[in-house]
Amino acid sequence: MMATAQEQNGKHDIDWMREALALAWRGQYTTTPNPRVGCIFVKEGQLLAQGFHAKAGEGHAEVQAMADATARGVSLEGSTAYVTLEPCAHHGRTGPCAEALIPTGVKRVVVATLDPNPLVAGKGMALLQAAGVETAQGVLETEARWMNRGFFSRMERKRPWVRLKVATSADGVTALNNGVSQWITSPEARQDGHHLRAQACAVLTGIGTVKADNPQLNVRGINTPRQPIKVVVDSFFEIAPDATLLQTGEIWIAHANAQRPAWIDSHPNSTGIVTLNVAPTLPHQAHGVSSISKANKPKTDLALLLKQLAERGINEVHLEAGFGLNGSFLQAGLVDEVVQYIAPRFLGPGMQAFRLPELTALPDQTPWQLHSHTSIGPDLKVVWVRSTETH
Amino acid sequence: MMATAQEQNGKHDIDWMREALALAWRGQYTTTPNPRVGCIFVKEGQLLAQGFHAKAGEGHAEVQAMADATARGVSLEGSTAYVTLEPCAHHGRTGPCAEALIPTGVKRVVVATLDPNPLVAGKGMALLQAAGVETAQGVLETEARWMNRGFFSRMERKRPWVRLKVATSADGVTALNNGVSQWITSPEARQDGHHLRAQACAVLTGIGTVKADNPQLNVRGINTPRQPIKVVVDSFFEIAPDATLLQTGEIWIAHANAQRPAWIDSHPNSTGIVTLNVAPTLPHQAHGVSSISKANKPKTDLALLLKQLAERGINEVHLEAGFGLNGSFLQAGLVDEVVQYIAPRFLGPGMQAFRLPELTALPDQTPWQLHSHTSIGPDLKVVWVRSTETH
Repeated sequence: MMATAQEQNGKHDIDWMREALALAWRGQYTTTPNPRVGCIFVKEGQLLAQGFHAKAGEGHAEVQAMADATARGVSLEGSTAYVTLEPCAHHGRTGPCAEALIPTGVKRVVVATLDPNPLVAGKGMALLQAAGVETAQGVLETEARWMNRGFFSRMERKRPWVRLKVATSADGVTALNNGVSQWITSPEARQDGHHLRAQACAVLTGIGTVKADNPQLNVRGINTPRQPIKVVVDSFFEIAPDATLLQTGEIWIAHANAQRPAWIDSHPNSTGIVTLNVAPTLPHQAHGVSSISKANKPKTDLALLLKQLAERGINEVHLEAGFGLNGSFLQAGLVDEVVQYIAPRFLGPGMQAFRLPELTALPDQTPWQLHSHTSIGPDLKVVWVRSTETH
Repeated sequence: MMATAQEQNGKHDIDWMREALALAWRGQYTTTPNPRVGCIFVKEGQLLAQGFHAKAGEGHAEVQAMADATARGVSLEGSTAYVTLEPCAHHGRTGPCAEALIPTGVKRVVVATLDPNPLVAGKGMALLQAAGVETAQGVLETEARWMNRGFFSRMERKRPWVRLKVATSADGVTALNNGVSQWITSPEARQDGHHLRAQACAVLTGIGTVKADNPQLNVRGINTPRQPIKVVVDSFFEIAPDATLLQTGEIWIAHANAQRPAWIDSHPNSTGIVTLNVAPTLPHQAHGVSSISKANKPKTDLALLLKQLAERGINEVHLEAGFGLNGSFLQAGLVDEVVQYIAPRFLGPGMQAFRLPELTALPDQTPWQLHSHTSIGPDLKVVWVRSTETH
């Protein structure tokens, strides 16, 4: 039986696209601020060449796959390309992939999803169609958007995807009342949390956590060449110069008051420390007036912070904070995903994961949905997502 | 190729035993106080006859399967029997199944697990072996014990299997601080909870829940001919005669004080109401001394209550109570399984599921293990089990 366009050697478009997605995921830790993309060329049921985008400034997935074809000495004439994201049509750092594909003689290009930028969406496909290349789109689109939900969020909503990570007991306790929280969950769960940190463009925490735990906030135990940026919400510049997380890497301090501390410029890691003024726009703002009490001073505007992070190319934020900041983000509707590691323990009195206002009635609706649940070592990993058009 | 003893028509012992277990499960709501048991006769890869135990006083699974063979007009000569529990060797209401099997000419009997009663375990198998029947045991033993964990618990530990059911938000809240808890989880989760009630021999709650919610505590929306016994822990006989759950069915009131209220004998459902004295054995017990305060009076001894329930043939207890009684059972180490329905909600301040003492350090060990996790409608159902030798 002849292989049809939809079925090659028993494999359907969906099977090849799944391989392309797996390939794209090999860039999971490194493509920021770019999306993860994979590309496979197939002919007569055989994989001819493959590539994925590894790092901004290096070749896009299609270019990498074409280079792979050259290295293997195979012709792409008459082949089908499976790409997890629409080939670009703009002259960026690497030239438009849609144009580069045409001279290969590729017969058909199947994409999982169009470019999320509404100004360019469909242009890559149109270029290919104009050159007589068959096109198809929407194969494993949900999976492709999920993989790059940070990139899609930044493009479509002008803010990063915010993933909040929390570890709790089965009865919802994230720390005992005396603050003890190390360790409620298992080493396996903590390692999984480092995978998530490594995938993020930025790891975000609050000054409360920095003061209480003095965390490193870096990625440990994961084979990645890139450390995410560390973002600290510190409205009043309370961070101590010797805080561990300030000593290495890139740290962005989000504050809401103009007095940049003098010690920053003489800090050993001064080139790594960036300050972001994210003061809210208030009718009677009182910047720099030192006589007013701290309680009356403006605090960091979290929505504005996310907007600024998006402008700086942050796709995925990994939020790992305490009761207060977690609650503020959640209450403001700025959390897109909650990753909850639940340990098989019942701890009784303790801190919840989020400071939220007291309810007197149960809302009929919840914006949250169960996305997935998996066992990780002895613990349960539950992913809750907010209903949104982005995933 | 000839079918071997282990493999009949491509099916292995394990496959046939899985069918026998599925058959046994058809008695899920009705076999109490007996175990759920299924039996299948197979010859040359063909199922000859099958049966399961439906109800105490009716035929055991083996007898039902033999009757099925008779009805179908098939001979069991040379067949293999798969039974999920060792055939009985004692003269009970229906005669020993092991003896009854021998005249059928059955060639081989495979059981999932031996009889849990240490006094009779192995006797059924020995009877068969003495008659020249091949035997094998331990096929899907874990599954077979899990299915009858209540029966095994009663036989081996002289107490029922206690399954605590609770519904919480993702942040561990089972009720708002004003008491509102209807409904945190979905109709689908509540329906699943009724399945669990229907499987239980008894549904147990506390006087606090009866006063606060006036529950029916019966099984609704499940196709079952049997309602479980309702057990109320009511140390001081505080239950009101018009409490809904007293009006129908069988109710056991567990108390710790000798004064049986006079209204019980004139209650419309007086024949259904049983009182159980489960006062603890205390050095200076003060039964009936009305001058001592309620706080000093003895409360129900929960371990003793479970012992009494086992003596009365209760295998599985479905515990559906409030903060206080849930916590008391959990703290006493008397809960074997927690079924937690988790809704995709973050509710903030509220009641936890269990009153437990405050910890100052995290224990290194937890007796709990993740058993299973499934989505039920929009909610997540998590089953936690206590490490024990019984499952």
